[in-house]
Amino acid sequence: QVRRMLNSLPAPDVAHVIESSPPKTRAVIWRLIDIEREGEILPYLNDEIESQFLRNMDSEELLTITEGLEADDVADILQQLPDRVIREVLQLMDKQDRQRVEHVLSYPEDTAGGMMNTDAITVRAKTPLEVVLRYLRRHEELPEMTDNLIVVNRRDEYIGQLPLRKVLVSDPNITVREIMVTDVDAIPASMDDGEVATLFERNDWVSAPVIDEQGKLIGRITIDDVVDVIREDADHSLMSLAGLDEDEDTFAPVLQTAPRRAMWLGINLLTAFLASSVINMFEGTIDKVVALAILMPIVASMGGIAGTQTLTVVIRGMALGQVGSNNSGWLINKEFLVGIINGLCWSMIVAVAVTLWFDDTLIGMIIAGAMVINLVTAGLAGAVIPIALRRLNIDPALAGGVVLTTVTDVVGFMSFLGLATFFYM
Amino acid sequence: QVRRMLNSLPAPDVAHVIESSPPKTRAVIWRLIDIEREGEILPYLNDEIESQFLRNMDSEELLTITEGLEADDVADILQQLPDRVIREVLQLMDKQDRQRVEHVLSYPEDTAGGMMNTDAITVRAKTPLEVVLRYLRRHEELPEMTDNLIVVNRRDEYIGQLPLRKVLVSDPNITVREIMVTDVDAIPASMDDGEVATLFERNDWVSAPVIDEQGKLIGRITIDDVVDVIREDADHSLMSLAGLDEDEDTFAPVLQTAPRRAMWLGINLLTAFLASSVINMFEGTIDKVVALAILMPIVASMGGIAGTQTLTVVIRGMALGQVGSNNSGWLINKEFLVGIINGLCWSMIVAVAVTLWFDDTLIGMIIAGAMVINLVTAGLAGAVIPIALRRLNIDPALAGGVVLTTVTDVVGFMSFLGLATFFYM
Ligand SMILES: [Mg+2]
Ligand SMILES: [Mg+2]
Ligand SMILES: [Mg+2]
Ligand SMILES: [Mg+2]
Ligand SMILES: [Mg+2]
Ligand SMILES: [Mg+2]
Ligand SMILES: [Mg+2]
Ligand SMILES: [Mg+2]
Ligand SMILES: [Mg+2]
Ligand SMILES: [Mg+2]
Ligand SMILES: [Mg+2]
Ligand SMILES: [Mg+2]
Ligand SMILES: [Mg+2]
Repeated sequence: QVRRMLNSLPAPDVAHVIESSPPKTRAVIWRLIDIEREGEILPYLNDEIESQFLRNMDSEELLTITEGLEADDVADILQQLPDRVIREVLQLMDKQDRQRVEHVLSYPEDTAGGMMNTDAITVRAKTPLEVVLRYLRRHEELPEMTDNLIVVNRRDEYIGQLPLRKVLVSDPNITVREIMVTDVDAIPASMDDGEVATLFERNDWVSAPVIDEQGKLIGRITIDDVVDVIREDADHSLMSLAGLDEDEDTFAPVLQTAPRRAMWLGINLLTAFLASSVINMFEGTIDKVVALAILMPIVASMGGIAGTQTLTVVIRGMALGQVGSNNSGWLINKEFLVGIINGLCWSMIVAVAVTLWFDDTLIGMIIAGAMVINLVTAGLAGAVIPIALRRLNIDPALAGGVVLTTVTDVVGFMSFLGLATFFYM
Repeated sequence: QVRRMLNSLPAPDVAHVIESSPPKTRAVIWRLIDIEREGEILPYLNDEIESQFLRNMDSEELLTITEGLEADDVADILQQLPDRVIREVLQLMDKQDRQRVEHVLSYPEDTAGGMMNTDAITVRAKTPLEVVLRYLRRHEELPEMTDNLIVVNRRDEYIGQLPLRKVLVSDPNITVREIMVTDVDAIPASMDDGEVATLFERNDWVSAPVIDEQGKLIGRITIDDVVDVIREDADHSLMSLAGLDEDEDTFAPVLQTAPRRAMWLGINLLTAFLASSVINMFEGTIDKVVALAILMPIVASMGGIAGTQTLTVVIRGMALGQVGSNNSGWLINKEFLVGIINGLCWSMIVAVAVTLWFDDTLIGMIIAGAMVINLVTAGLAGAVIPIALRRLNIDPALAGGVVLTTVTDVVGFMSFLGLATFFYM
């Protein structure tokens, strides 16, 4: 019964059930699925799980599951396999399918070329709509998400789009040229997938034509694949800030997850030792005034929190394409001022609380001074670090958090214990 | 020239320029834009900026800018205004527009009803395709993103969809019934917008019909608005973990940003004092062994990092709808085991490093023991906290981080200083 239920569920739902299951259940479910449906389900799976399932298949099986899939999905599947297997599977395909898939495979996975499909329906500008309608009727069914036909010249160069919503309301006797849309540019195959997503999001497209360097139409991108890129890019910032990959599988086995997390812990351990060595420099002061040991985490952690807020805002702004060289100066200045305001505001409260707690005005003044220094540093660092990292071509979402907390810990301990050493010793 | 350039740019691009500008530039740009274009640009703006611009308009101006907009966009604009102004603007509209907008306004903003548009084209099942085509030709232009016509019965109840991609390839003499799709359910108006997004994402829809409690067709949702929800929901986890709103405006003025950030700093200050009071309990021990003060941040921070990794994975899993009551037990157990493995692995390395640094085996053993305890706690807490918070109907992305770091700080200091007190005193 479970098998029958699974095989009657739509492919995306089966994929979701698999993704939400622990490893053993996954294997059982996968075995229950008919081989003809496996290909349909694979494109909906997380890359990590997908490649696990693919690893156990031979080229015959791979050929079976890729039959009937769109060229971009076949390319996605093949890209997870070793080169030797890719060549074997391509060899087994019929010529037309092979050419299509090879075309998509010739572009990197994360570019417009790698996202595109080869199923665009093209028409010529001089054709009367009546002929277009007759031509369409010769198809079994139009490809999914066909909102526009694509107008090309006889050298197959892109010249415009013919929206079906206009075809359906127009006089059949006019020609394509009279209602085609020519003010939308086609997407170059080399464009980064994130940029493609921004274009779709901003312009509310359902599909868009893709051209090669010569301006020749080579395919089209549809919104369903763009939505997946949007989801991945948005997850990237969230997951990277915790040192995780956006493809991280929530239900991966323990022995697969543990080593992946270990690396990040190791990097952070180094920065923690660095912070400790800063404290070590003030050993003598702490030995004399134990209250410093009790209070020093407050200064460091408040800096970490303030810095993380700024860092998160800037990283999100970068992901949305809002932060550029023309406004990053303003942004750094703003976060600096916010740091001053909140530093002054909270340090006064902390000064009062600490003075009352330890019945010592001096330590209250010292922690207040250290907090102002650290919150201002945090605001500056939270804005400068991601902007600088991006300029160095380092992923700010991945490296930003580590660099930032190192700065706020070091500056926090240094300023607090440094001021204390100055006033007490 | 700037005015001419701005007014020739597509609306989404103007919105992007505004969002990427500091407050003063924003005001200047907004003044340069023709009033007829303002309505077109507003729906593309961040909610916060949108409501700022709206605040300065009277009902006449509001009427002008909402003219020609889709009902859902008008509803979005009106929802930002005080009730009195909403009533005034609605009064000024013509009857048909008013009814449409009122229909959308009657549903909460974050439900299917609030997202929908009222522009669906409906047909009856018994109609021949030829009549459908003639009916379509009577329209000026079909509404954007019309991939399906919607089939209703004479009580206006939803019964199925008629894909245009089938209409275009079928014999005009058959009836709608013969090619309509009936296995796709319509969306109930009360469905949460996040659920709507999941349905679109999983099933690769371009548009979907919306029905009321009686099963009557009341509108349709299109993918462009769903993409905005996907982006917002994905940003929500990222921004909430830093105590920020997903609508946070990157370039908001300093005096607007500072007080918003202050609250979060205040909450974290309380937890920092809590951690300090834990350290305070062990004042005597630290006074005797200063090395403890130097090393204690390592234990706390490693716990924080490990816990944040788990928390992030679980919160992302929840946002994707992967974590439910059937698998949360497995997930908690997994993160517990990952905590044990990484705790044992890194505590051994730390034990060796600390023993060499302080030339004292006992302190090496103590920090190793404390790290195992804290990393295991972090793994458990990182998984249990968001699951528990969600059960209590508290947003895990917003509250999870604070609760987690409180736990890892308290357990970190307590275990390290507690073990030290036991062995040294
Ligand atoms: Mg995939
Ligand atoms: Mg691809
Ligand atoms: Mg990319
Ligand atoms: Mg959009
Ligand atoms: Mg596709
Ligand atoms: Mg990937
Ligand atoms: Mg809006
Ligand atoms: Mg709305
Ligand atoms: Mg929602
Ligand atoms: Mg999809
Ligand atoms: Mg809309
Ligand atoms: Mg819209
Ligand atoms: Mg909002």
